Amino acid sequence: MRPHRLFPSEAELETLFDELSNAGRWGAEDELGTLNYISPAKRVAAASLVRTGKALSIARDLDTKQSSNNPSPVRHTMCYQAHEPIGAVDELALGTHGFALTHLDAIAHVYRGRDVYNGRKAADVANPGGLTCCDILAQKDGIFTRGVLLNIAAVRGVPWMGPDQGVYAADLEAAEKLQRIRVGTGDAIFVYTGLQKREAVEGPENLGQRIGIMPDAIRWMHQREISVYSGDCVDAFPNPYGPRYSIYFHAIALAAMGLILLDIPALEPLVELCVDLQRSDFLLAMAPLRIKGGTGSPVNPIAIF
Amino acid sequence: MRPHRLFPSEAELETLFDELSNAGRWGAEDELGTLNYISPAKRVAAASLVRTGKALSIARDLDTKQSSNNPSPVRHTMCYQAHEPIGAVDELALGTHGFALTHLDAIAHVYRGRDVYNGRKAADVANPGGLTCCDILAQKDGIFTRGVLLNIAAVRGVPWMGPDQGVYAADLEAAEKLQRIRVGTGDAIFVYTGLQKREAVEGPENLGQRIGIMPDAIRWMHQREISVYSGDCVDAFPNPYGPRYSIYFHAIALAAMGLILLDIPALEPLVELCVDLQRSDFLLAMAPLRIKGGTGSPVNPIAIF
Amino acid sequence: MRPHRLFPSEAELETLFDELSNAGRWGAEDELGTLNYISPAKRVAAASLVRTGKALSIARDLDTKQSSNNPSPVRHTMCYQAHEPIGAVDELALGTHGFALTHLDAIAHVYRGRDVYNGRKAADVANPGGLTCCDILAQKDGIFTRGVLLNIAAVRGVPWMGPDQGVYAADLEAAEKLQRIRVGTGDAIFVYTGLQKREAVEGPENLGQRIGIMPDAIRWMHQREISVYSGDCVDAFPNPYGPRYSIYFHAIALAAMGLILLDIPALEPLVELCVDLQRSDFLLAMAPLRIKGGTGSPVNPIAIF
Amino acid sequence: MRPHRLFPSEAELETLFDELSNAGRWGAEDELGTLNYISPAKRVAAASLVRTGKALSIARDLDTKQSSNNPSPVRHTMCYQAHEPIGAVDELALGTHGFALTHLDAIAHVYRGRDVYNGRKAADVANPGGLTCCDILAQKDGIFTRGVLLNIAAVRGVPWMGPDQGVYAADLEAAEKLQRIRVGTGDAIFVYTGLQKREAVEGPENLGQRIGIMPDAIRWMHQREISVYSGDCVDAFPNPYGPRYSIYFHAIALAAMGLILLDIPALEPLVELCVDLQRSDFLLAMAPLRIKGGTGSPVNPIAIF
Repeated sequence: MRPHRLFPSEAELETLFDELSNAGRWGAEDELGTLNYISPAKRVAAASLVRTGKALSIARDLDTKQSSNNPSPVRHTMCYQAHEPIGAVDELALGTHGFALTHLDAIAHVYRGRDVYNGRKAADVANPGGLTCCDILAQKDGIFTRGVLLNIAAVRGVPWMGPDQGVYAADLEAAEKLQRIRVGTGDAIFVYTGLQKREAVEGPENLGQRIGIMPDAIRWMHQREISVYSGDCVDAFPNPYGPRYSIYFHAIALAAMGLILLDIPALEPLVELCVDLQRSDFLLAMAPLRIKGGTGSPVNPIAIF
Repeated sequence: MRPHRLFPSEAELETLFDELSNAGRWGAEDELGTLNYISPAKRVAAASLVRTGKALSIARDLDTKQSSNNPSPVRHTMCYQAHEPIGAVDELALGTHGFALTHLDAIAHVYRGRDVYNGRKAADVANPGGLTCCDILAQKDGIFTRGVLLNIAAVRGVPWMGPDQGVYAADLEAAEKLQRIRVGTGDAIFVYTGLQKREAVEGPENLGQRIGIMPDAIRWMHQREISVYSGDCVDAFPNPYGPRYSIYFHAIALAAMGLILLDIPALEPLVELCVDLQRSDFLLAMAPLRIKGGTGSPVNPIAIF
Repeated sequence: MRPHRLFPSEAELETLFDELSNAGRWGAEDELGTLNYISPAKRVAAASLVRTGKALSIARDLDTKQSSNNPSPVRHTMCYQAHEPIGAVDELALGTHGFALTHLDAIAHVYRGRDVYNGRKAADVANPGGLTCCDILAQKDGIFTRGVLLNIAAVRGVPWMGPDQGVYAADLEAAEKLQRIRVGTGDAIFVYTGLQKREAVEGPENLGQRIGIMPDAIRWMHQREISVYSGDCVDAFPNPYGPRYSIYFHAIALAAMGLILLDIPALEPLVELCVDLQRSDFLLAMAPLRIKGGTGSPVNPIAIF
Repeated sequence: MRPHRLFPSEAELETLFDELSNAGRWGAEDELGTLNYISPAKRVAAASLVRTGKALSIARDLDTKQSSNNPSPVRHTMCYQAHEPIGAVDELALGTHGFALTHLDAIAHVYRGRDVYNGRKAADVANPGGLTCCDILAQKDGIFTRGVLLNIAAVRGVPWMGPDQGVYAADLEAAEKLQRIRVGTGDAIFVYTGLQKREAVEGPENLGQRIGIMPDAIRWMHQREISVYSGDCVDAFPNPYGPRYSIYFHAIALAAMGLILLDIPALEPLVELCVDLQRSDFLLAMAPLRIKGGTGSPVNPIAIF
């Protein structure tokens, strides 16, 4: 594979980590990270985006099928109630992360080395009973803000981008230009590279060969003060980094910026609806389950247009 | 205990079931029930209720403590990643109903005898792999509508109502009058009787001695065309009915009306915020997990004012 | 497929059920069924079979891979203990039956219609909290008796028998003759038809096309007063019976006889060792987990020669 | 509390660890540890202990009640099969260790620092998918040997010993003398201090105040070449050791000796039966579930007299 991606050195990432750090920005006790960008006024403005009343889920179905990208599938059990039941109840067992589940990350989900967001240390934050801070419960009042789709596949003029590609700051700006929109403070962005279209043709993404967000795009997200990153690409693989930055985007987003990550969204229907309505922005409403100490939560984000 | 509650006969409930039935109203294939009352225009109107930008969760924390009201508590497990982990992940096991979890019911969650909403039969709808229709996945695009708090404790002039009480249509109308608000088509109502205040003083609710919604209040909900019922009371216990109507409110709401039920909300902070803001209505945004075949889903509903 | 199997009519099964019933045989309260055949003297005699001291597991590994025969695989989770752990712990989630797990059935696991062993009724025995009697806990003191391998594939002179075959009483007696052994009161028998050899060549058994124990062989088991049936074949499929006898062997063994069933054993290593040692009998030692109300239990039976 | 227990220094434990190490004793690849002491001849001899044919479980019931000693209780779920079911099936979710479950430890369950039995390192042995060696599957062919009860409470002349007590080598030898028995190579010992009697009176054991095996008793176990330790006391708490030896008995038994530990047995019925039969030894038969990579397994050990 030709070198399609140019990675900065790990030393440069160390510098970037410090540059993008929001430690202390919202106080020593802060556990909200970039959700602080979503002010009450931002919520009011976001609500005003609801003009057609069309609502759309951007989650995948919980996946009970085992696969290379879903080694420990969701377990769904229908329960016995009575010999002549008057209703039906069930149970779920599931992991809160992975490559099959649409989920929100708690800010303390990923470390940089042993560093957790806002000057905390992993050994203090993680214990067998759960995270002691920066857990998913910190996000309990939900995320209600403007969502913006950025279609990088369209920028590149392809139905989908290959696994050896990267998304750069220039791509994000090109998408803004093409779509005549500008990402601003408190927005949640959804970066689309056509992954699910690619998987429909080429099969499940090889987890060792993944298209990814490039480091300069992380700086762009910091400068634009986005509240949430979502997209069909996250960390690029392979990459040249050791364990400290092996998942460099998660490490810098979560541990430096406190940037909320919404992993594994279902973007195809969103892209289609944006095309239909000739819009790129919408109201995003979602909330994690209230899991005290939780490292993440399955979620069903709704886009309302 | 004096007879505080007057229940109609089971024969009268049979008549009420037929009277309130929405079978066929939205087509033979309908699985949305009263969510059909939430039109796109209703969503637009609901969004316009966001005036202060204040957001509030109305869910309880997932409860990992065992109790008489939570016999099978949520299991939360932190997972091993590596001897020197770069992050934290976890797993959940939980039932989707019960008296401890804030959850949405699938329409086929409760039957009337063997009858399921819209002319279906339980034996066809429930199988070991899940519900074949009227499952929680039918609600995947979420619920985004006007929420209205109806404070019945305030109507009665008490901090909380006792376990031998019932909520009648007249109570709901008295609350409307007191609060100067009117419930209309597509609204989600939240009926408050002060249960959590009572439990704080008297201990966990005895599941055999429960305050409840009275049958004439169900008719009122039908007439007002509400989309969602939520509240700190549901079926009254004890009641005089056999298995066909032992949980008569669930049976009529789900199996006749297709009325969506949001069980076990956390109403105390909502009541406080409504008092603070001198409002009774708000935007309600929530969405179930996308569980194909699921009988319900844990959910974290957000009220935005 | 040619009619390789001759099934008696369902009416004949009704008669057989009554003929083989052990209801009342060991008292109205009995929950042990054919384990009553294992007397203390039988245990002493069984222990004397230990002559070489060779021990062998006859269980399969718990199976975490999903397949047509294992739709809801075992979930095995390694748990987080500390940032610098001093050990490793884990969790399991599993179903106690199915076609992938070596397990013991509780006597009340299968009904004949609504009839459970010893005159009980399913609606009384099964409740959401578990079985109220004839549960797996009844077998808590374990099974310690003589095991006898009966190699039906050898009787037929084939490496494995096809899915359209049945095992008849005559096969069992032919195996006794060939192996110069006689099955007696309290023995546990292991019937071998070469299934795992077949699966290694032809792939996983089609659950709708299964080799099975024929009804006359069940009568033979009753007459011989065996305590436990195990084998690589159970109920034949397809068969001509309605729901009352759709799994006729389970229904008659459990609900009429109280015959303990050890499902899904791993017989290949046992067959090999029997050949090596030129023996057909051995000491069998196993015990279910003590699951109050349980319908079955994973188990790891040990054969000691 | 007066100093009832005299602990050697941590430096002395380091020396003891090396002294008792069985690393290399049974080859560089060994994963059986002290199960190597159970020779075929030992199994034959153990079988000859079966003289009355009386069998007894020495496990506790799986515990679905939450308590200070059982924070994450077993989850037992009855499953829906059909509207008119022909049987009952269920599911289990459980942790494989803790203070409520009778379980076998895998040899790699506990480390000394980062050291695992037989020269291995924790970072190599533990991964998210399970243990790569010295897992519970190594014990798959079960444990079939002589069991010996050592009643230390009787030695001390008390119904139960207090939480500030320790069991020393001298206690074990005094029990041998009192009971006129001698522990030898390959035996499994069951040390009884009356804990369950104490708990019946004083309530659940405080996990921070635990009676324990003293280090010189570990040396005695090594010298006597026992195969399995079980008992109602394990590591003494509080103790003066840092993380390397905070659970010094587990650390030395598992990581140095490869001594198999059977935790949380139910000893009261065993003690009673031994008194009744005027015996202290019996055949012990048990086998873990075949969990590849597992750190332990629930087990139901059977004593046969």
